Amino acid sequence: MIGYGFMGAAHSQAWRTAPRVFGLPRAIEMSVIVGRNEDAVTAAAAKWGWNEAATDWREVVARDDIDVIDIVTPGHSHDEIAIAALEAGKHVLCEKPLANTVDDADQMAAAARTAAGAGARAMLGFTYRRVPALTRARDLIAEGRIGTVQQVRAAYRQDWLVDPEAPLSWRLKKDQAGAGALGDIGGHAVDLVQFLTGQQVSTVSGVVETIVKERPIETERVGIAGRGGDEYGEVTVDDVAIFTGRLTGGALAAFEATRFATGRKNELTVEISGDKGAIAFNLESMNELQVYDRTAPDTDQGFTRVIVTEPAHPYLEGWWPAGHMLGYEHAFSHQVKDFVDAIASGADPSPTFDEGAQVQRVLAAVEESSSADARWITV
Amino acid sequence: MIGYGFMGAAHSQAWRTAPRVFGLPRAIEMSVIVGRNEDAVTAAAAKWGWNEAATDWREVVARDDIDVIDIVTPGHSHDEIAIAALEAGKHVLCEKPLANTVDDADQMAAAARTAAGAGARAMLGFTYRRVPALTRARDLIAEGRIGTVQQVRAAYRQDWLVDPEAPLSWRLKKDQAGAGALGDIGGHAVDLVQFLTGQQVSTVSGVVETIVKERPIETERVGIAGRGGDEYGEVTVDDVAIFTGRLTGGALAAFEATRFATGRKNELTVEISGDKGAIAFNLESMNELQVYDRTAPDTDQGFTRVIVTEPAHPYLEGWWPAGHMLGYEHAFSHQVKDFVDAIASGADPSPTFDEGAQVQRVLAAVEESSSADARWITV
Amino acid sequence: MIGYGFMGAAHSQAWRTAPRVFGLPRAIEMSVIVGRNEDAVTAAAAKWGWNEAATDWREVVARDDIDVIDIVTPGHSHDEIAIAALEAGKHVLCEKPLANTVDDADQMAAAARTAAGAGARAMLGFTYRRVPALTRARDLIAEGRIGTVQQVRAAYRQDWLVDPEAPLSWRLKKDQAGAGALGDIGGHAVDLVQFLTGQQVSTVSGVVETIVKERPIETERVGIAGRGGDEYGEVTVDDVAIFTGRLTGGALAAFEATRFATGRKNELTVEISGDKGAIAFNLESMNELQVYDRTAPDTDQGFTRVIVTEPAHPYLEGWWPAGHMLGYEHAFSHQVKDFVDAIASGADPSPTFDEGAQVQRVLAAVEESSSADARWITV
Amino acid sequence: MIGYGFMGAAHSQAWRTAPRVFGLPRAIEMSVIVGRNEDAVTAAAAKWGWNEAATDWREVVARDDIDVIDIVTPGHSHDEIAIAALEAGKHVLCEKPLANTVDDADQMAAAARTAAGAGARAMLGFTYRRVPALTRARDLIAEGRIGTVQQVRAAYRQDWLVDPEAPLSWRLKKDQAGAGALGDIGGHAVDLVQFLTGQQVSTVSGVVETIVKERPIETERVGIAGRGGDEYGEVTVDDVAIFTGRLTGGALAAFEATRFATGRKNELTVEISGDKGAIAFNLESMNELQVYDRTAPDTDQGFTRVIVTEPAHPYLEGWWPAGHMLGYEHAFSHQVKDFVDAIASGADPSPTFDEGAQVQRVLAAVEESSSADARWITV
Repeated sequence: MIGYGFMGAAHSQAWRTAPRVFGLPRAIEMSVIVGRNEDAVTAAAAKWGWNEAATDWREVVARDDIDVIDIVTPGHSHDEIAIAALEAGKHVLCEKPLANTVDDADQMAAAARTAAGAGARAMLGFTYRRVPALTRARDLIAEGRIGTVQQVRAAYRQDWLVDPEAPLSWRLKKDQAGAGALGDIGGHAVDLVQFLTGQQVSTVSGVVETIVKERPIETERVGIAGRGGDEYGEVTVDDVAIFTGRLTGGALAAFEATRFATGRKNELTVEISGDKGAIAFNLESMNELQVYDRTAPDTDQGFTRVIVTEPAHPYLEGWWPAGHMLGYEHAFSHQVKDFVDAIASGADPSPTFDEGAQVQRVLAAVEESSSADARWITV
Repeated sequence: MIGYGFMGAAHSQAWRTAPRVFGLPRAIEMSVIVGRNEDAVTAAAAKWGWNEAATDWREVVARDDIDVIDIVTPGHSHDEIAIAALEAGKHVLCEKPLANTVDDADQMAAAARTAAGAGARAMLGFTYRRVPALTRARDLIAEGRIGTVQQVRAAYRQDWLVDPEAPLSWRLKKDQAGAGALGDIGGHAVDLVQFLTGQQVSTVSGVVETIVKERPIETERVGIAGRGGDEYGEVTVDDVAIFTGRLTGGALAAFEATRFATGRKNELTVEISGDKGAIAFNLESMNELQVYDRTAPDTDQGFTRVIVTEPAHPYLEGWWPAGHMLGYEHAFSHQVKDFVDAIASGADPSPTFDEGAQVQRVLAAVEESSSADARWITV
Repeated sequence: MIGYGFMGAAHSQAWRTAPRVFGLPRAIEMSVIVGRNEDAVTAAAAKWGWNEAATDWREVVARDDIDVIDIVTPGHSHDEIAIAALEAGKHVLCEKPLANTVDDADQMAAAARTAAGAGARAMLGFTYRRVPALTRARDLIAEGRIGTVQQVRAAYRQDWLVDPEAPLSWRLKKDQAGAGALGDIGGHAVDLVQFLTGQQVSTVSGVVETIVKERPIETERVGIAGRGGDEYGEVTVDDVAIFTGRLTGGALAAFEATRFATGRKNELTVEISGDKGAIAFNLESMNELQVYDRTAPDTDQGFTRVIVTEPAHPYLEGWWPAGHMLGYEHAFSHQVKDFVDAIASGADPSPTFDEGAQVQRVLAAVEESSSADARWITV
Repeated sequence: MIGYGFMGAAHSQAWRTAPRVFGLPRAIEMSVIVGRNEDAVTAAAAKWGWNEAATDWREVVARDDIDVIDIVTPGHSHDEIAIAALEAGKHVLCEKPLANTVDDADQMAAAARTAAGAGARAMLGFTYRRVPALTRARDLIAEGRIGTVQQVRAAYRQDWLVDPEAPLSWRLKKDQAGAGALGDIGGHAVDLVQFLTGQQVSTVSGVVETIVKERPIETERVGIAGRGGDEYGEVTVDDVAIFTGRLTGGALAAFEATRFATGRKNELTVEISGDKGAIAFNLESMNELQVYDRTAPDTDQGFTRVIVTEPAHPYLEGWWPAGHMLGYEHAFSHQVKDFVDAIASGADPSPTFDEGAQVQRVLAAVEESSSADARWITV
């Protein structure tokens, strides 16, 4: 595993947990964790249970005893690491966003297609697809339960930047993080809508904006927010993105990605309206799926709050009895399960790097639209 | 009262109720109800308790024994009736939208300003301002409880057109209704955001769309939807409008108005994020206001669900003990109360026709943006 | 109408509204309102729109031009007024509780049975039966939609006595109010369970308790709570009642009635579990009914939140389009409708005085159990 | 670890996870898992990552290289194993209920007190105490935030026995499981109320009942419910328990434990009303705590929905950024953390076996009351 931040912790927990919960077709060995700071990565290895720590990812990628490279670094380094790993014949699991630019993403996607021919699998970490309620929603929509999709809304709202004194971390620097709220959480919203509907966003119109333009330079990392000092630096990514997309099936989709939604800590909502029904989801109640059936008698219609913890629900066979809730990191274990299953079966895991590159193109089109007076831009 | 549809019923109930609940400074006499169809308006007079029925609004407007004209007709007739009434020195309460075109609205606003000099009051029926939870939200924001407004979302979602066989009523004809979802319910969302923040929408970018383009021509009116026959006609108004506005204070506001939100019968939601707090409201829980205080200790923060039924809450002094819920039409009684109070005190009631004309300009700008590739249009 | 407190206001609003919303078979004339304090009742007549005020209910009951007596006085006077009115051949609508003692209640029920033979109708004001969501719940259960009832919970929670300085109003004096939380709101819970299930509570075990035993004597009436002075008096009714009942069908029902549920202003909840499904209701969301269908596939099961505002839902044909919420006092209009319908058709309205007397017997059995070490008492 | 059912899985996950999430003062070695069926326990060892499998717990308890014994067997075997382990100087973590009889529980508590003198720690697995929202609630109440506790309600509702054909598993046999819904989930409710309030239940009155008296004998274990065959056997434990307790501080507490609450999969609710505020919790929204502050201005009061995922909330420092939800099994990791901390510091972990024995006495008193016509029984 390359990287050891918040995502490093979540992925480590998944690698350790998935083989215990699910019957994986391959044994998991947590071999090496890689970071530039030797002390920090050594501590991370001990804390999260990796056999070794290393500081040079190239050496690790070159090792014969390593089969899988899991990339949890900031987005700007994804392309170099992933392409090297794929060329070395490793299976690659890469955190989102795929890359910070469309060009980088396209190169990664090309590398993945090439590597697939040689048996190396590449998978992108849009983990929310594997929250059982959302996987279930995808299945319901695919089965036609809500009919033709007529309208879509998706919003990812956080509030950790409402405080103008929140420090300038790497997530607020374009050269490292890519695209701010749009790239960090807007990408989740776009991927989720495409995943749920089975359609793509084909054109977009929108606005991307930085609300607080200067912040105290981070002097200490604490959680995702950190602590700042007396010096200020420029925020080079957006705080909020509001955009509308047209899906390939014709429906309009309204999107919001923001770090300024006061009181919304990590609220990813999606609602899909069809001519036969609708589904609605809120990550703050992540074990629940709201399902509306418009074919029921008028007097019986309403949103049904399905607690998605039944043994027959996606991924639930490995967990607890019905009604026992799953948490945030469980989806990472599901991701490991599906990734290892794909490696074992020789199938392409989803989301592919091509899917990730397409999401990057949607986000780039949003930025382009924002710079072009909000005009519609074809992805 | 001119008109006798759904709004006629709501207004009648308010005229009958307000004097009983509140101590009004003037006695209310429900004199004449006016409609073109003699039988229907006679029946309406009997049903809703008006002393007389009439078919010619001009005659009624000319009567000396009438002080107030309440207009609840479709939007296209508002300007003619309201201007005539104001010129005749009557106080005018006019249902929203103020008019179907900006020109008509401007003329009405001019007439209202002129009439005000002669002591006639004009008020526009954006009734939701007088839902106690929303009046309370306005007060909280005005007091600075959420600090500087940084982001806004407002959506008005209905689903009565999801069915492609829902008939073509007057609400779906541009010549009568004006602007579809945008004009009918989007106007409420715009007014509400402006009312709550005390700011105006200064520029907009968006899209307006008709999803179902032909519908069965209405043969019978039943509720707001009616019943259709075998012939089809063109839908000339929009079904959905998605747009972003910039407030005069700088914040972005995301809007949605739709009649295609499957399962959402009459859901008006608004959420206003400030740097010190936030408020959130959903008309489906109309007696509740969610209030977030970001100045509280981290471990205590959360949205507080205030049930806005305390005696000290707006308009509640006349109603039931705390915890006894109000319904949809109560806001109409509050409107009557404030209108009569304004007439008695010689103050201008709010919303004024100027405010209504400004909302019409925002809606017109949305339509213009939609026709101009979603470019930002200055209101 | 005899009485002019909180219930007087609610009933007046209903008498004025019902004929406008529903097509009643009889015209309503709001003739005389009666109270002992001449000034106050005169003011009430003016405020609520009664033609006359009077101070002697006996004279009013004797008048030939009066057909209906509506009793909204405290419980201790119900029996005398109701019996006199029934004997005078008047139709009687009586607020709950039917009476303060089982004996009084039985005499009233006997009088009602006698009067019915002479064509006078008697109805008891357990108004919540006519909240559309609850009427709908009754229908669903009667249709077998939740199968055999296996368990029941009902709680009525308020918090207006949490403050130990809340004054000693008539509602806290046994000689006037009867039985405190048990009689005032516990009766609603018992009636509702019996109404919804179509079964009776046959035996009970429970505890009834006064938490704050002395309070400031009320010097001014404000809402239901009033204001107190410096002198203290003994609270002679209960603050909280917790009891379990056995229904005639065999299921256990857990009840709570309290005025000490901090933060719960007027929360009446009921949940009925059957072998095929369940219903749940909360008066704080009074337009919603939660319905669970256990016969659906496991993966689809969940509580469906039905917004009970469809035209085909009970009582909704007279009100607003779907999704427009009703409030607390609407059920009083439904009560007037059903009462007048019953008078016109010569049918016995429900709840009858017999039903009310049976509820009183349940409450008396709870008090007896509380005094008998919580032993099971047969009703 | 002795045992390998549902609780075995949860405990294994906790032993594996806690040292990664928290900085434990002792290294964790997952040594031996014990079960009577050699094949099954061998498979469990492999699945959950234990070094060895064994079939004789006595041998394991006797081993010098084992420091901690974690007991996750059915309740009837707890006493023998725990006492042996404590006598052998091992630290013991024991799943609830402590034992199936009060006598057994008392002997275990005595053994724990003796062992404590020799440095062996004993802890009981009332895990819900360590759901962060509930730990936080305890802290708030201890700080006086809700004032004096005046009323309490706690209910644990499941529905896995609503189906009369659900099979007769060990959980439905008194000789193995002890006391049915009362013992299995009612114990959680009692412990939680005592934990939150810092008070004990001193007297109880209630009813305990078996609704379905015969069920198909289990032929296969699947989750907690299993599958049944054609033969029927007697259900010897209760399905539902409804009881009222008096706390040592004087307040009444209403309890319900049921497996017949159709649609409620695993709903543990608790609401504590004080004279200054209240807290409410529902395990279906386990990351949320509802807090009511009665000292706020009337117009601002309401239940505040605190998402208990801030870094400063209990146990959160080791987990994810604010707003990222925890699930059911996280509390087991918290339990491991506190247990290991206690072992390292030589402090007595809580809940102690004494606390567990006291809960057993409460449950036994409920059964006694149920057999004694619901009379109040002193614990």
